Amino acid sequence: MKVFVVEDLRAANEEMARENRRLLERYGLVVVNLIGGPGSGKTTLLEKSIAMLGDRLRFGIIEGDIYTTRDAARLEKLGVEVVQLNTAGACHLDAAMVGKALPELPLASVDLVVVENVGNLVCPAEFDLGEDLKVAVLSVTEGSDKPAKYPLVFHEAKACVLTKLDLLPYTDFDLEAVRGELAALNPALEVFPVSARTGEGMGAWCQWLLRQVPRKRQPASGC
Amino acid sequence: MKVFVVEDLRAANEEMARENRRLLERYGLVVVNLIGGPGSGKTTLLEKSIAMLGDRLRFGIIEGDIYTTRDAARLEKLGVEVVQLNTAGACHLDAAMVGKALPELPLASVDLVVVENVGNLVCPAEFDLGEDLKVAVLSVTEGSDKPAKYPLVFHEAKACVLTKLDLLPYTDFDLEAVRGELAALNPALEVFPVSARTGEGMGAWCQWLLRQVPRKRQPASGC
Repeated sequence: MKVFVVEDLRAANEEMARENRRLLERYGLVVVNLIGGPGSGKTTLLEKSIAMLGDRLRFGIIEGDIYTTRDAARLEKLGVEVVQLNTAGACHLDAAMVGKALPELPLASVDLVVVENVGNLVCPAEFDLGEDLKVAVLSVTEGSDKPAKYPLVFHEAKACVLTKLDLLPYTDFDLEAVRGELAALNPALEVFPVSARTGEGMGAWCQWLLRQVPRKRQPASGC
Repeated sequence: MKVFVVEDLRAANEEMARENRRLLERYGLVVVNLIGGPGSGKTTLLEKSIAMLGDRLRFGIIEGDIYTTRDAARLEKLGVEVVQLNTAGACHLDAAMVGKALPELPLASVDLVVVENVGNLVCPAEFDLGEDLKVAVLSVTEGSDKPAKYPLVFHEAKACVLTKLDLLPYTDFDLEAVRGELAALNPALEVFPVSARTGEGMGAWCQWLLRQVPRKRQPASGC
């Protein structure tokens, strides 16, 4: 019988996150951890961001899914480096999984690593992957009450992308009320309402993403 | 230091689920466990179901949320019995939580108990609450790929409600493809495409829900 002790698992995750961070610092790499519910539009946001920034940023993607390689296949078509992580049931990525995926990316030749977490607005927010920043993804079709109901991810994130803005007229999503709730939870949070379909708001989001990447990446020492 | 051993927690959950089941059998009560991602429309589906069936079924509701009592407040306005369960961070309900909430409902005078789980398409599917049946809730705005990506809940469920059907024309959701994927995962699954807003499909769903409740509930013995 396998017995896992929760406290040990948490300590092990923190140690692995530190190890990932050391590896990434060595390459001067920024890592974004993209967190949102199922169908919030994380992969589509990534597709459009890559299409808009692909000539200025070399993306390395780690695709987290419980099963399937569909999202990785979508992104691979865009010519970016993608590693698929299947959790085989687990509801979030942890630092050990990411630690296995990172060396599969050409770390010396990418500018930005984006980890797309498993579709879940709850659990992924609790696990440090060794990333530099978390980005929360919430679609307007999910409803205005979500920041208050699932506060941790919005509290931990550096930015929040409000997706599917083209569907706003057909919903009762209250953009200004949500901005207010987000500001109360996290005054420093940058909020980007976007529609990947029409392109609305994508420019501001891509500019912000670009600013997260150091202008002059340090070459990896000793590699 | 508190140390929780996962195997013990699972065994404890199974024992508590059996205990809940014994209590519910005593009252001849059916319990539905409603599972879906954040913003999939679980509370709205419940609101409309109560509005349509409230004169034929006495509902008892257990509202699972991490924080807030917003959903419970929405349902209480409809005059049904509601107990709020706040998990204070946990990503799913477990049988012990439901075991504490059940006696807070007037079990002898309700016909059907519905547990609205925490908004999460992954973790709640793994925990038996002592319910009779699980119902998966997926909104068409979440995308056609969700059954394949999050198969457990669709495999475990007796019915799947596809919500926000009024938004179908504005999405690329492929209803027939999703029906096919659901049938492959779970041939016995009953699928109900609905719009709580327009009422489309709600009749068939409510008729099915009504059929899950025994015609003659057995009076609780010894109470």
